[in-house]
Amino acid sequence: MKALVFDLDGTLVDSVYQHVVAWQRAFASEGIDLAGLEIHRRIGMDGEVMLAALDRTFSLGLRAEQRRVLASRHNQYFSNMRDDVHLVAQADRIAAALEPVDVRWAIVTSGTQNDVGPFLHALHADRAAAVITSDERVPSKPAPHPLARAFEALGVEPHDAGVVGDSVWDMLASREAGSLGIGVLTGGNGRSDLFESGAFRVYRDIAELLQRLEEVGIQAR
Amino acid sequence: MKALVFDLDGTLVDSVYQHVVAWQRAFASEGIDLAGLEIHRRIGMDGEVMLAALDRTFSLGLRAEQRRVLASRHNQYFSNMRDDVHLVAQADRIAAALEPVDVRWAIVTSGTQNDVGPFLHALHADRAAAVITSDERVPSKPAPHPLARAFEALGVEPHDAGVVGDSVWDMLASREAGSLGIGVLTGGNGRSDLFESGAFRVYRDIAELLQRLEEVGIQAR
Repeated sequence: MKALVFDLDGTLVDSVYQHVVAWQRAFASEGIDLAGLEIHRRIGMDGEVMLAALDRTFSLGLRAEQRRVLASRHNQYFSNMRDDVHLVAQADRIAAALEPVDVRWAIVTSGTQNDVGPFLHALHADRAAAVITSDERVPSKPAPHPLARAFEALGVEPHDAGVVGDSVWDMLASREAGSLGIGVLTGGNGRSDLFESGAFRVYRDIAELLQRLEEVGIQAR
Repeated sequence: MKALVFDLDGTLVDSVYQHVVAWQRAFASEGIDLAGLEIHRRIGMDGEVMLAALDRTFSLGLRAEQRRVLASRHNQYFSNMRDDVHLVAQADRIAAALEPVDVRWAIVTSGTQNDVGPFLHALHADRAAAVITSDERVPSKPAPHPLARAFEALGVEPHDAGVVGDSVWDMLASREAGSLGIGVLTGGNGRSDLFESGAFRVYRDIAELLQRLEEVGIQAR
Protein backbone atom coordinates (compact mmCIF):
# COMPACT_ATOMS: atom_id res chain seq x y z
CA MET A 1 0.00 0.00 0.00
CA LYS A 2 1.76 3.13 -1.24
CA ALA A 3 -0.92 5.78 -0.81
CA LEU A 4 -4.14 6.69 1.00
CA VAL A 5 -6.86 8.94 -0.37
CA PHE A 6 -9.14 10.52 2.25
CA ASP A 7 -12.69 11.74 1.93
CA LEU A 8 -13.32 14.96 3.87
CA ASP A 9 -16.88 15.35 5.31
CA GLY A 10 -17.59 12.65 7.88
CA THR A 11 -14.06 11.26 7.53
CA LEU A 12 -11.59 14.06 8.37
CA VAL A 13 -14.18 16.61 9.46
CA ASP A 14 -17.09 15.86 11.83
CA SER A 15 -19.68 17.68 9.73
CA VAL A 16 -22.30 15.16 8.59
CA TYR A 17 -24.95 15.91 11.25
CA GLN A 18 -24.69 19.63 10.49
CA HIS A 19 -24.97 18.94 6.75
CA VAL A 20 -28.14 16.89 7.33
CA VAL A 21 -29.73 19.66 9.38
CA ALA A 22 -28.69 22.32 6.82
CA TRP A 23 -30.09 20.36 3.84
CA GLN A 24 -33.30 19.54 5.70
CA ARG A 25 -33.78 23.22 6.52
CA ALA A 26 -33.10 24.16 2.88
CA PHE A 27 -35.75 21.71 1.67
CA ALA A 28 -38.21 22.92 4.30
CA SER A 29 -37.70 26.50 3.07
CA GLU A 30 -39.02 25.28 -0.29
CA GLY A 31 -41.96 23.54 1.39
CA ILE A 32 -40.45 20.06 1.00
CA ASP A 33 -40.50 17.79 4.08
CA LEU A 34 -37.70 15.20 3.76
CA ALA A 35 -36.65 12.76 6.50
CA GLY A 36 -33.18 13.40 7.93
CA LEU A 37 -32.32 9.77 7.22
CA GLU A 38 -32.92 10.15 3.49
CA ILE A 39 -30.52 13.07 3.35
CA HIS A 40 -27.99 11.40 5.64
CA ARG A 41 -27.78 8.29 3.46
CA ARG A 42 -27.00 10.42 0.40
CA ILE A 43 -24.35 12.65 1.97
CA GLY A 44 -20.97 12.07 0.32
CA MET A 45 -22.40 12.23 -3.16
CA ASP A 46 -21.78 15.38 -5.11
CA GLY A 47 -24.50 17.95 -4.20
CA GLU A 48 -26.01 17.99 -7.68
CA VAL A 49 -26.05 14.21 -7.87
CA MET A 50 -27.72 14.10 -4.43
CA LEU A 51 -30.44 16.53 -5.49
CA ALA A 52 -31.06 14.49 -8.65
CA ALA A 53 -31.24 11.28 -6.58
CA LEU A 54 -33.72 12.73 -4.06
CA ASP A 55 -35.74 14.26 -6.89
CA ARG A 56 -36.04 10.89 -8.63
CA THR A 57 -36.71 8.78 -5.53
CA PHE A 58 -39.35 11.05 -4.03
CA SER A 59 -40.76 12.50 -7.30
CA LEU A 60 -40.12 16.03 -6.06
CA GLY A 61 -40.30 17.61 -9.52
CA LEU A 62 -37.44 20.03 -8.75
CA ARG A 63 -36.85 22.73 -11.35
CA ALA A 64 -33.28 23.80 -12.25
CA GLU A 65 -33.76 27.15 -10.54
CA GLN A 66 -35.07 25.40 -7.41
CA ARG A 67 -31.98 23.16 -7.28
CA ARG A 68 -29.79 26.24 -7.34
CA VAL A 69 -31.83 27.76 -4.51
CA LEU A 70 -31.58 24.56 -2.45
CA ALA A 71 -27.81 24.32 -2.92
CA SER A 72 -27.33 27.96 -2.05
CA ARG A 73 -29.54 27.80 1.08
CA HIS A 74 -27.73 24.64 2.21
CA ASN A 75 -24.44 26.52 1.91
CA GLN A 76 -25.83 29.41 3.88
CA TYR A 77 -27.36 27.28 6.68
CA PHE A 78 -24.23 25.14 6.91
CA SER A 79 -22.04 28.25 7.13
CA ASN A 80 -24.14 29.40 10.10
CA MET A 81 -23.12 26.18 11.88
CA ARG A 82 -19.45 26.28 10.86
CA ASP A 83 -18.36 26.96 14.46
CA ASP A 84 -19.88 23.62 15.49
CA VAL A 85 -17.71 21.69 13.04
CA HIS A 86 -14.29 20.33 14.03
CA LEU A 87 -11.71 17.89 12.72
CA VAL A 88 -12.22 14.28 13.84
CA ALA A 89 -9.76 12.96 16.41
CA GLN A 90 -6.18 12.85 15.07
CA ALA A 91 -7.07 13.97 11.54
CA ASP A 92 -4.36 16.58 12.10
CA ARG A 93 -1.82 13.75 12.57
CA ILE A 94 -2.17 12.11 9.15
CA ALA A 95 0.88 13.77 7.64
CA ALA A 96 2.98 12.96 10.71
CA ALA A 97 1.82 9.33 10.72
CA LEU A 98 2.23 8.58 7.00
CA GLU A 99 5.45 10.42 6.10
CA PRO A 100 7.75 8.20 8.23
CA VAL A 101 6.39 5.07 6.52
CA ASP A 102 6.66 6.57 3.01
CA VAL A 103 2.95 6.54 2.31
CA ARG A 104 1.70 9.46 0.21
CA TRP A 105 -1.79 10.86 0.70
CA ALA A 106 -4.43 13.04 -0.89
CA ILE A 107 -7.90 14.40 -0.14
CA VAL A 108 -10.83 13.87 -2.51
CA THR A 109 -14.11 15.53 -1.57
CA SER A 110 -17.50 16.15 -3.14
CA GLY A 111 -17.42 19.54 -1.44
CA THR A 112 -16.24 22.75 -3.06
CA GLN A 113 -12.95 24.55 -2.49
CA ASN A 114 -15.02 27.02 -0.52
CA ASP A 115 -16.29 24.22 1.79
CA VAL A 116 -12.90 22.65 2.45
CA GLY A 117 -10.77 25.80 2.66
CA PRO A 118 -11.24 26.40 6.40
CA PHE A 119 -9.95 22.92 7.29
CA LEU A 120 -6.89 22.55 5.03
CA HIS A 121 -4.45 24.35 7.29
CA ALA A 122 -5.32 22.25 10.39
CA LEU A 123 -5.06 19.09 8.26
CA HIS A 124 -1.56 20.09 7.04
CA ALA A 125 -2.94 19.61 3.54
CA ASP A 126 0.07 21.40 2.09
CA ARG A 127 1.88 18.12 2.76
CA ALA A 128 -0.73 16.13 0.77
CA ALA A 129 -0.02 15.24 -2.87
CA ALA A 130 -3.35 16.67 -3.97
CA VAL A 131 -6.64 18.12 -2.71
CA ILE A 132 -9.37 17.43 -5.24
CA THR A 133 -12.72 19.19 -4.84
CA SER A 134 -15.90 19.25 -6.89
CA ASP A 135 -14.66 22.45 -8.52
CA GLU A 136 -12.50 20.25 -10.77
CA ARG A 137 -14.31 19.68 -14.03
CA VAL A 138 -14.71 15.94 -13.66
CA PRO A 139 -17.78 13.98 -12.49
CA SER A 140 -17.71 13.85 -8.70
CA LYS A 141 -18.18 10.91 -6.28
CA PRO A 142 -19.70 8.34 -6.46
CA ALA A 143 -18.07 8.44 -9.93
CA PRO A 144 -14.47 7.17 -9.77
CA HIS A 145 -13.02 10.05 -11.83
CA PRO A 146 -11.69 12.23 -9.00
CA LEU A 147 -10.05 9.18 -7.42
CA ALA A 148 -8.32 8.42 -10.75
CA ARG A 149 -7.08 11.99 -10.78
CA ALA A 150 -5.75 11.61 -7.23
CA PHE A 151 -3.90 8.38 -8.08
CA GLU A 152 -2.27 10.21 -11.00
CA ALA A 153 -1.14 13.03 -8.70
CA LEU A 154 0.13 10.43 -6.22
CA GLY A 155 1.95 8.49 -8.94
CA VAL A 156 0.43 5.15 -7.87
CA GLU A 157 -1.64 2.43 -9.47
CA PRO A 158 -5.16 2.13 -7.98
CA HIS A 159 -4.42 -1.31 -6.55
CA ASP A 160 -1.56 0.17 -4.53
CA ALA A 161 -3.87 2.71 -2.89
CA GLY A 162 -6.58 2.76 -0.22
CA VAL A 163 -9.62 5.05 -0.16
CA VAL A 164 -10.72 6.06 3.34
CA GLY A 165 -14.31 7.25 3.65
CA ASP A 166 -17.43 7.25 5.82
CA SER A 167 -20.08 6.68 3.14
CA VAL A 168 -21.12 3.89 0.83
CA TRP A 169 -20.42 6.33 -2.06
CA ASP A 170 -16.76 6.34 -1.11
CA MET A 171 -16.73 2.54 -1.13
CA LEU A 172 -18.57 2.45 -4.48
CA ALA A 173 -16.15 4.94 -6.06
CA SER A 174 -13.18 3.02 -4.65
CA ARG A 175 -14.43 -0.26 -6.02
CA GLU A 176 -14.98 1.27 -9.46
CA ALA A 177 -11.52 2.84 -9.38
CA GLY A 178 -9.90 -0.47 -8.40
CA SER A 179 -8.54 0.56 -5.00
CA LEU A 180 -9.01 -0.75 -1.46
CA GLY A 181 -12.04 0.68 0.37
CA ILE A 182 -11.52 1.49 4.06
CA GLY A 183 -14.52 2.65 6.08
CA VAL A 184 -14.79 4.92 9.12
CA LEU A 185 -17.90 5.30 11.28
CA THR A 186 -17.62 9.02 12.04
CA GLY A 187 -20.19 9.93 9.37
CA GLY A 188 -22.83 7.93 11.23
CA ASN A 189 -23.26 5.18 8.65
CA GLY A 190 -23.56 1.61 9.90
CA ARG A 191 -20.61 -0.73 9.96
CA SER A 192 -22.53 -3.33 7.95
CA ASP A 193 -23.60 -0.79 5.33
CA LEU A 194 -19.94 -0.05 4.69
CA PHE A 195 -18.91 -3.72 4.60
CA GLU A 196 -21.81 -4.50 2.26
CA SER A 197 -20.58 -1.75 -0.07
CA GLY A 198 -17.18 -3.37 -0.32
CA ALA A 199 -15.15 -1.99 2.57
CA PHE A 200 -12.14 -4.19 3.30
CA ARG A 201 -12.00 -2.91 6.89
CA VAL A 202 -14.07 -0.48 8.96
CA TYR A 203 -12.57 1.62 11.78
CA ARG A 204 -14.29 3.77 14.35
CA ASP A 205 -12.40 6.87 13.22
CA ILE A 206 -9.13 8.13 11.76
CA ALA A 207 -7.48 7.77 15.18
CA GLU A 208 -8.15 4.02 15.18
CA LEU A 209 -6.99 3.64 11.57
CA LEU A 210 -3.68 5.37 12.35
CA GLN A 211 -3.14 2.95 15.25
CA ARG A 212 -3.70 -0.04 12.97
CA LEU A 213 -2.04 0.83 9.69
CA GLU A 214 -0.54 -2.66 9.40
CA GLU A 215 -4.05 -4.06 8.95
CA VAL A 216 -4.44 -2.22 5.64
CA GLY A 217 -1.03 -3.26 4.36
CA ILE A 218 1.14 -0.39 5.59
CA GLN A 219 4.34 -1.55 7.27
CA ALA A 220 5.60 0.40 10.25
CA ARG A 221 9.34 1.05 10.09
CA MET B 1 -50.13 -8.93 19.15
CA LYS B 2 -52.51 -6.77 21.16
CA ALA B 3 -50.57 -3.55 21.61
CA LEU B 4 -47.69 -1.45 20.27
CA VAL B 5 -45.51 0.88 22.32
CA PHE B 6 -43.76 3.63 20.35
CA ASP B 7 -40.58 5.50 21.13
CA LEU B 8 -40.79 9.21 20.22
CA ASP B 9 -37.48 10.81 19.08
CA GLY B 10 -36.25 9.21 15.86
CA THR B 11 -39.33 7.00 15.68
CA LEU B 12 -42.41 9.26 15.60
CA VAL B 13 -40.53 12.54 15.38
CA ASP B 14 -37.61 13.21 13.02
CA SER B 15 -35.45 14.89 15.63
CA VAL B 16 -32.27 12.84 16.09
CA TYR B 17 -29.96 14.92 13.86
CA GLN B 18 -31.06 18.09 15.65
CA HIS B 19 -30.50 16.44 19.04
CA VAL B 20 -26.96 15.45 18.01
CA VAL B 21 -26.12 18.98 16.88
CA ALA B 22 -27.67 20.46 20.06
CA TRP B 23 -25.75 18.11 22.40
CA GLN B 24 -22.50 18.63 20.49
CA ARG B 25 -22.93 22.39 20.80
CA ALA B 26 -23.68 22.05 24.52
CA PHE B 27 -20.48 20.05 25.07
CA ALA B 28 -18.48 22.53 22.98
CA SER B 29 -19.77 25.36 25.18
CA GLU B 30 -18.08 23.57 28.08
CA GLY B 31 -14.88 23.11 26.08
CA ILE B 32 -15.52 19.42 25.39
CA ASP B 33 -15.05 18.21 21.80
CA LEU B 34 -17.14 15.06 21.24
CA ALA B 35 -17.70 13.34 17.88
CA GLY B 36 -21.27 13.55 16.58
CA LEU B 37 -21.23 9.77 16.18
CA GLU B 38 -20.59 9.19 19.89
CA ILE B 39 -23.62 11.30 20.78
CA HIS B 40 -25.77 9.81 18.02
CA ARG B 41 -25.17 6.24 19.19
CA ARG B 42 -26.30 7.16 22.72
CA ILE B 43 -29.46 9.08 21.78
CA GLY B 44 -32.54 7.26 23.05
CA MET B 45 -31.08 6.75 26.48
CA ASP B 46 -32.35 8.97 29.23
CA GLY B 47 -30.34 12.24 29.18
CA GLU B 48 -28.75 11.64 32.60
CA VAL B 49 -27.82 8.09 31.68
CA MET B 50 -26.31 9.35 28.43
CA LEU B 51 -24.19 11.94 30.25
CA ALA B 52 -23.01 9.28 32.69
CA ALA B 53 -22.15 6.95 29.78
CA LEU B 54 -20.17 9.59 27.88
CA ASP B 55 -18.47 10.66 31.11
CA ARG B 56 -17.33 7.11 31.82
CA THR B 57 -16.30 6.19 28.25
CA PHE B 58 -14.31 9.35 27.56
CA SER B 59 -13.16 10.07 31.16
CA LEU B 60 -14.64 13.56 30.98
CA GLY B 61 -14.71 14.06 34.74
CA LEU B 62 -18.07 15.88 34.63
CA ARG B 63 -19.19 17.50 37.86
CA ALA B 64 -22.87 17.42 38.90
CA GLU B 65 -23.24 21.14 38.25
CA GLN B 66 -21.69 20.70 34.79
CA ARG B 67 -24.16 17.94 33.93
CA ARG B 68 -27.03 20.29 34.80
CA VAL B 69 -25.49 22.99 32.59
CA LEU B 70 -25.05 20.53 29.69
CA ALA B 71 -28.65 19.30 29.94
CA SER B 72 -29.99 22.82 30.14
CA ARG B 73 -27.91 24.09 27.18
CA HIS B 74 -28.97 21.06 25.12
CA ASN B 75 -32.60 21.95 25.83
CA GLN B 76 -32.00 25.53 24.82
CA TYR B 77 -30.11 24.72 21.59
CA PHE B 78 -32.65 22.07 20.63
CA SER B 79 -35.51 24.51 21.24
CA ASN B 80 -33.84 26.92 18.82
CA MET B 81 -34.16 24.23 16.12
CA ARG B 82 -37.71 23.17 17.03
CA ASP B 83 -39.05 24.58 13.74
CA ASP B 84 -36.84 22.11 11.82
CA VAL B 85 -38.42 19.11 13.54
CA HIS B 86 -41.45 17.34 12.08
CA LEU B 87 -43.33 14.11 12.55
CA VAL B 88 -42.05 11.19 10.45
CA ALA B 89 -44.22 10.13 7.51
CA GLN B 90 -47.62 8.83 8.65
CA ALA B 91 -46.90 9.04 12.37
CA ASP B 92 -50.17 11.00 12.49
CA ARG B 93 -51.98 7.92 11.13
CA ILE B 94 -51.13 5.48 13.94
CA ALA B 95 -54.44 5.88 15.77
CA ALA B 96 -56.40 5.52 12.51
CA ALA B 97 -54.42 2.43 11.50
CA LEU B 98 -54.53 0.57 14.83
CA GLU B 99 -58.05 1.26 16.11
CA PRO B 100 -59.84 -0.72 13.37
CA VAL B 101 -57.71 -3.79 14.15
CA ASP B 102 -58.22 -3.48 17.92
CA VAL B 103 -54.58 -2.85 18.70
CA ARG B 104 -53.98 -0.45 21.60
CA TRP B 105 -50.94 1.79 21.67
CA ALA B 106 -48.81 3.98 23.90
CA ILE B 107 -45.79 6.27 23.71
CA VAL B 108 -42.74 5.78 25.93
CA THR B 109 -39.97 8.34 25.62
CA SER B 110 -36.75 9.25 27.42
CA GLY B 111 -37.69 12.89 26.76
CA THR B 112 -39.52 15.11 29.21
CA GLN B 113 -43.17 16.20 29.07
CA ASN B 114 -41.78 19.55 27.96
CA ASP B 115 -39.99 17.89 24.99
CA VAL B 116 -42.92 15.85 23.77
CA GLY B 117 -45.74 18.33 24.39
CA PRO B 118 -45.57 20.07 21.02
CA PHE B 119 -46.05 16.80 19.12
CA LEU B 120 -48.83 15.10 21.07
CA HIS B 121 -51.71 16.85 19.34
CA ALA B 122 -50.51 16.00 15.81
CA LEU B 123 -49.93 12.38 16.91
CA HIS B 124 -53.52 12.14 18.26
CA ALA B 125 -51.95 11.01 21.50
CA ASP B 126 -55.25 11.56 23.31
CA ARG B 127 -56.27 8.30 21.65
CA ALA B 128 -53.20 6.46 23.08
CA ALA B 129 -53.56 4.42 26.28
CA ALA B 130 -50.60 6.22 27.87
CA VAL B 131 -47.79 8.68 27.20
CA ILE B 132 -44.88 7.95 29.52
CA THR B 133 -42.05 10.49 29.76
CA SER B 134 -38.89 10.69 31.84
CA ASP B 135 -40.82 12.91 34.29
CA GLU B 136 -42.31 9.72 35.74
CA ARG B 137 -40.34 8.66 38.75
CA VAL B 138 -39.05 5.40 37.32
CA PRO B 139 -35.65 4.62 35.75
CA SER B 140 -35.81 5.59 32.07
CA LYS B 141 -34.76 3.64 28.95
CA PRO B 142 -32.68 1.55 28.43
CA ALA B 143 -34.17 0.28 31.73
CA PRO B 144 -37.38 -1.69 31.08
CA HIS B 145 -39.39 0.07 33.83
CA PRO B 146 -41.29 2.60 31.68
CA LEU B 147 -42.23 -0.18 29.25
CA ALA B 148 -43.61 -2.23 32.14
CA ARG B 149 -45.66 0.77 33.17
CA ALA B 150 -46.98 1.13 29.61
CA PHE B 151 -47.99 -2.55 29.44
CA GLU B 152 -49.88 -2.06 32.69
CA ALA B 153 -51.75 0.94 31.27
CA LEU B 154 -52.46 -1.03 28.10
CA GLY B 155 -53.68 -4.04 30.07
CA VAL B 156 -51.46 -6.48 28.15
CA GLU B 157 -48.77 -8.99 28.97
CA PRO B 158 -45.32 -8.05 27.60
CA HIS B 159 -45.29 -11.00 25.20
CA ASP B 160 -48.47 -9.69 23.58
CA ALA B 161 -46.88 -6.30 22.84
CA GLY B 162 -44.35 -4.87 20.39
CA VAL B 163 -41.93 -2.03 21.09
CA VAL B 164 -41.21 0.19 18.07
CA GLY B 165 -38.02 2.23 18.25
CA ASP B 166 -35.05 3.56 16.29
CA SER B 167 -32.27 2.88 18.77
CA VAL B 168 -30.51 -0.13 20.21
CA TRP B 169 -31.66 1.13 23.63
CA ASP B 170 -35.28 0.56 22.63
CA MET B 171 -34.41 -2.97 21.55
CA LEU B 172 -32.49 -3.60 24.78
CA ALA B 173 -35.36 -2.31 26.94
CA SER B 174 -37.85 -4.37 24.93
CA ARG B 175 -35.81 -7.53 25.34
CA GLU B 176 -35.52 -6.97 29.09
CA ALA B 177 -39.25 -6.31 29.34
CA GLY B 178 -40.09 -9.47 27.40
CA SER B 179 -41.77 -7.85 24.39
CA LEU B 180 -41.12 -7.94 20.64
CA GLY B 181 -38.58 -5.37 19.40
CA ILE B 182 -39.40 -3.67 16.10
CA GLY B 183 -36.82 -1.31 14.60
CA VAL B 184 -37.20 1.73 12.36
CA LEU B 185 -34.34 3.43 10.50
CA THR B 186 -35.50 7.04 10.84
CA GLY B 187 -33.15 7.72 13.76
CA GLY B 188 -30.17 7.02 11.49
CA ASN B 189 -29.03 3.81 13.19
CA GLY B 190 -27.93 0.94 10.97
CA ARG B 191 -30.27 -1.93 10.14
CA SER B 192 -27.72 -4.46 11.37
CA ASP B 193 -27.18 -2.62 14.64
CA LEU B 194 -30.90 -2.97 15.35
CA PHE B 195 -31.03 -6.64 14.35
CA GLU B 196 -27.94 -7.36 16.44
CA SER B 197 -29.71 -5.77 19.43
CA GLY B 198 -32.62 -8.15 19.10
CA ALA B 199 -35.02 -6.50 16.64
CA PHE B 200 -37.47 -9.03 15.21
CA ARG B 201 -38.01 -6.84 12.14
CA VAL B 202 -36.64 -3.51 10.94
CA TYR B 203 -38.66 -1.08 8.79
CA ARG B 204 -37.58 2.05 7.00
CA ASP B 205 -40.11 4.16 8.90
CA ILE B 206 -43.54 4.16 10.55
CA ALA B 207 -45.19 4.42 7.11
CA GLU B 208 -43.65 1.10 6.06
CA LEU B 209 -44.57 -0.56 9.37
CA LEU B 210 -48.21 0.50 9.01
CA GLN B 211 -48.27 -1.06 5.53
CA ARG B 212 -46.94 -4.35 6.85
CA LEU B 213 -48.65 -4.87 10.21
CA GLU B 214 -49.29 -8.54 9.39
CA GLU B 215 -45.53 -9.14 9.55
CA VAL B 216 -45.48 -8.30 13.27
CA GLY B 217 -48.50 -10.44 14.06
CA ILE B 218 -51.32 -7.92 13.65
CA GLN B 219 -54.20 -9.27 11.59
CA ALA B 220 -56.00 -6.91 9.26
CA ARG B 221 -59.79 -7.23 9.44
